[in-house]
Amino acid sequence: MENRKNVEVCFTPRGFDLYEADFKIVVVIDVLRATSAICTAIENGVDRIIPVSTVEEARAYQRQGYLAGAERNGKIVEGFQFGNSPFSYMGDEIKGKTIVLTTTNGTKTINLASNIPTVVIGSLCNLDVLCDWLIEQNENTLVLGSGWKGKFNLEDTICAGAIADQLIDSGKFIAEEDSTIAAKFIFRSSRENIFSFLKASSHRKRLRNLNLNEDIKYCLTPNTIRSIPILKEGEIVKLQYESVKIPK
Amino acid sequence: MENRKNVEVCFTPRGFDLYEADFKIVVVIDVLRATSAICTAIENGVDRIIPVSTVEEARAYQRQGYLAGAERNGKIVEGFQFGNSPFSYMGDEIKGKTIVLTTTNGTKTINLASNIPTVVIGSLCNLDVLCDWLIEQNENTLVLGSGWKGKFNLEDTICAGAIADQLIDSGKFIAEEDSTIAAKFIFRSSRENIFSFLKASSHRKRLRNLNLNEDIKYCLTPNTIRSIPILKEGEIVKLQYESVKIPK
Repeated sequence: MENRKNVEVCFTPRGFDLYEADFKIVVVIDVLRATSAICTAIENGVDRIIPVSTVEEARAYQRQGYLAGAERNGKIVEGFQFGNSPFSYMGDEIKGKTIVLTTTNGTKTINLASNIPTVVIGSLCNLDVLCDWLIEQNENTLVLGSGWKGKFNLEDTICAGAIADQLIDSGKFIAEEDSTIAAKFIFRSSRENIFSFLKASSHRKRLRNLNLNEDIKYCLTPNTIRSIPILKEGEIVKLQYESVKIPK
Repeated sequence: MENRKNVEVCFTPRGFDLYEADFKIVVVIDVLRATSAICTAIENGVDRIIPVSTVEEARAYQRQGYLAGAERNGKIVEGFQFGNSPFSYMGDEIKGKTIVLTTTNGTKTINLASNIPTVVIGSLCNLDVLCDWLIEQNENTLVLGSGWKGKFNLEDTICAGAIADQLIDSGKFIAEEDSTIAAKFIFRSSRENIFSFLKASSHRKRLRNLNLNEDIKYCLTPNTIRSIPILKEGEIVKLQYESVKIPK
């Protein structure tokens, strides 16, 4: 009877070691803006993204001729072509290319999760297609928020709660952790208008100060993207899959 | 204009180092059941509680003749008089006594916070009296949940959100962290019936398996206690104070 899989939410990388043991799949979330940008890049034809944790690593790749993006505290690091704005990853000049990327939170989280057999990249942008795929996999699934410099943030929690909600609604998954219950509750309370719910969010205020309203609207709009980025041997590529449910 | 103090919520001890720098007062919460039990003990005439982090430390005190309580995984550790049930701390035999206490989460959290100038013990039991006192102090205040073995839990978050809510409502405090916004939101959503809201909580299920429904009802009932326990040189004693607002 009870052979449902677990879906749980871990708010930040800080708690990851407490959760990781039982999960075959980790979904890494950094809604504002790293994982939204990665989904956008993969959707728009970037061949590979190499996530690195430090600006120094990104510079080393850059010296070898790679395209490289680096963001710290919401801004492009001096000397780099890109930060983590999704709008930087839509043009023809990136198609077929490999891009090295380091961000304040998201790329570190991806690398932290890299011991898990399957690591995929989630955002509100690819919410439904990702959830359908996760339901088909039917494995214990951990949704890992990137937070902000180790701290909890609302936008990652809302996105994580949205994923947990869909998986539980499928009838194939259950949640046991209070973090998952809270994330699902916050998502359900905010779903009618995520943008206005997040008006109270500290990180959104931080981004507003940087005049990033267009980025935020983009990152908070669900289901604009049908790609699922997946980590393969340290590089993020487009997941190739056939689904009975999803017309491609 | 803007000389309001901060009140913030840190969900678990795991995040404490990210928050601690700016706070003069820390309120430690472990609703089920350590801080509810400590408030009960101090209200009922226990002279001092010495919080220790390990069972071994508690045993060492016990060998010296101290009354000692030890709880792990919701149960009294073999060889100890008390666990963390509040009902163990109401009788005449504890009046005027010193009790050594170690619990799975709460006493570790208290000791972790002990570098902060002022550490007080909070629970739903002493909610209003504690908030009135915190508002009078008018210092940057961090509410620190104990969680469950490092993980987020709902009952500590609800209590922390209740405290943040009252402090913000006073007009003297503001919150900037997303964790505080989330805690306040979850409290406000649950306040009409905390007990039924927590039906979904993993930890409550764990306690229900141990037949602790009476303990849970007690711990979730606000404002049964008028004492504020405070940490002084490693020992928890009753805070002595005069308030213009609170008839004693």
